[in-house]
Amino acid sequence: MAYYVGIDLGGTNIKAGIVDDQGQLLNKDSIKTNAQRPMEEIIHDMGSLAVKVIEAAGLKKEDISAIGIGSPGTPDNKAGVLVYAGNLPFKMAPMRKLIREVIDLPVFIDNDANCAAMAEAVAGAAKGVKDSVTITLGTGVGAGVIVNGVIYSGFNQAGSEFGHTVLVSGGEQCTCGRKGCFEAYASASALIRMTKEAAEAAPDSKLAQVIKEEGKVNGMTAFKAQRMGDAAADGVIDKYTDYLADGLANAINAFMPEVLVVGGGVCNEGDPLLIPLQEKTMSRPFFGPGVRKTRIALAQMGNDAGIVGAAMMGMSCVNEKLDGTAC
Amino acid sequence: MAYYVGIDLGGTNIKAGIVDDQGQLLNKDSIKTNAQRPMEEIIHDMGSLAVKVIEAAGLKKEDISAIGIGSPGTPDNKAGVLVYAGNLPFKMAPMRKLIREVIDLPVFIDNDANCAAMAEAVAGAAKGVKDSVTITLGTGVGAGVIVNGVIYSGFNQAGSEFGHTVLVSGGEQCTCGRKGCFEAYASASALIRMTKEAAEAAPDSKLAQVIKEEGKVNGMTAFKAQRMGDAAADGVIDKYTDYLADGLANAINAFMPEVLVVGGGVCNEGDPLLIPLQEKTMSRPFFGPGVRKTRIALAQMGNDAGIVGAAMMGMSCVNEKLDGTAC
Repeated sequence: MAYYVGIDLGGTNIKAGIVDDQGQLLNKDSIKTNAQRPMEEIIHDMGSLAVKVIEAAGLKKEDISAIGIGSPGTPDNKAGVLVYAGNLPFKMAPMRKLIREVIDLPVFIDNDANCAAMAEAVAGAAKGVKDSVTITLGTGVGAGVIVNGVIYSGFNQAGSEFGHTVLVSGGEQCTCGRKGCFEAYASASALIRMTKEAAEAAPDSKLAQVIKEEGKVNGMTAFKAQRMGDAAADGVIDKYTDYLADGLANAINAFMPEVLVVGGGVCNEGDPLLIPLQEKTMSRPFFGPGVRKTRIALAQMGNDAGIVGAAMMGMSCVNEKLDGTAC
Repeated sequence: MAYYVGIDLGGTNIKAGIVDDQGQLLNKDSIKTNAQRPMEEIIHDMGSLAVKVIEAAGLKKEDISAIGIGSPGTPDNKAGVLVYAGNLPFKMAPMRKLIREVIDLPVFIDNDANCAAMAEAVAGAAKGVKDSVTITLGTGVGAGVIVNGVIYSGFNQAGSEFGHTVLVSGGEQCTCGRKGCFEAYASASALIRMTKEAAEAAPDSKLAQVIKEEGKVNGMTAFKAQRMGDAAADGVIDKYTDYLADGLANAINAFMPEVLVVGGGVCNEGDPLLIPLQEKTMSRPFFGPGVRKTRIALAQMGNDAGIVGAAMMGMSCVNEKLDGTAC
């Protein structure tokens, strides 16, 4: 049995764990990122956390085949460098070099959305499938593309930024600068915006009532009001699933994956989301007669997707015989 | 030197030629498709045309490594079957079996847009590059994706149908049934629609005058009127390149190719198309600081792209050790 360390670098927490070559998570631990610190300190702590989870699992350094790191932003896995990381203070961060100063193992690095896709491909909703796409609906919309069992992220490792493909030309302003991106219509943030707009337009609805009682709006609000029987909530979910389905159909037409995995907090709603989504999405892609169709599934890896995915990305790099020691 | 037969199956003509392993076309020939015939007859004629071009090049069957066929629609290259082919009379056509009855060589089959992308990747605008995307602007919008030197067309070989990703949700009706597809805004047909609309709105424009004189509208009309100095024509080209740039930026964000190749008849306009297109497109994709950017280039393979691409697709299948004899 081969073992891998997976490190999930986030804006608030750094999580790490030991994962076996079947994608099973043996243990995990976490520390605060404290993102205002110098990047060298943060990376040093990531290395120390790796040492800690290896010891906690009763393993030695020699038992570990590689460390995989999942991060926001764009890595340069060849150079072992995190080129940039969105809101985190990493610019051309020599990730591999600094981690290896703490623990001398091969280190690989990739985007967090790609790692989430790898987790689903190895041990989750796309297990056993060679071509899959995982779309994660959070504050933004992440996308990871697996081609022939390996992460595909373009020539510069910056892709796939499928969340920033325009779906509604000239539409809602997106954080990326463009207008009408898929992300601006399908993220949890977009669902919250639609929920607020609908509640304001129908102040006597149960949707407005729920918001008043709870004093806040989140991705669950509309589903909660829908369960109480509310036309305004039905309208929100209908609108949201409509845009989401359009974007998912686009992802199918672009990549033709065997399985399209949809993840993120909103997916905890289960069938009330999945069933209309499947119906709407599957009528839209361009399948000719007799052509096999993509299957849509909810993500299965939950909160551990980041750790497991980072570890399995590391495993994939080892299998591809990439050099995890070159700096 | 290894040689391949490339066959370009179209609705009007079937073209074939001999291509060497550097993508050089040695000779070519063509016959009418006569698409109303039984598919068995058409396929038989394709085999005979292959025999003819081999002889015309002074080669023997033994000199040929494989026959590659580029076709509209969706192939099943594993089974050697053309599953369907849009407007052509092929349903589950046993392409490999019937061609091999005429000439006993390995036969491979793929979508024509994929073959065009392969031609550009081996010998055209994306030569020497591992990851490229070729978008062909014709009656529709074709897309071929090359990942790591090999055609990527999804688990079912039906992709990438990037032309049928929605760009303008709820927009112009597309032939695929959806509304607002990239194809409905970026094809030559879309440019013709925009040209007609602008001429109707400005009957005193040079654009309207050109149409009146020529008695027709095509993809060149607006560019011709622009060269005469015409605001209505400027408007058409501005609008068309704006949508096209939005779709190309989407393709970059989705696939992050090193080179994005744009082909099709409209590209014969050269710089008056390419320069605004590059400027508009490159401000839109999601590249983080320090991340290498995609290059946009015009297709170079012209009318022979179909033959060369089909042959090079065949070469790629031979290199991948796929079985071109299994039926």
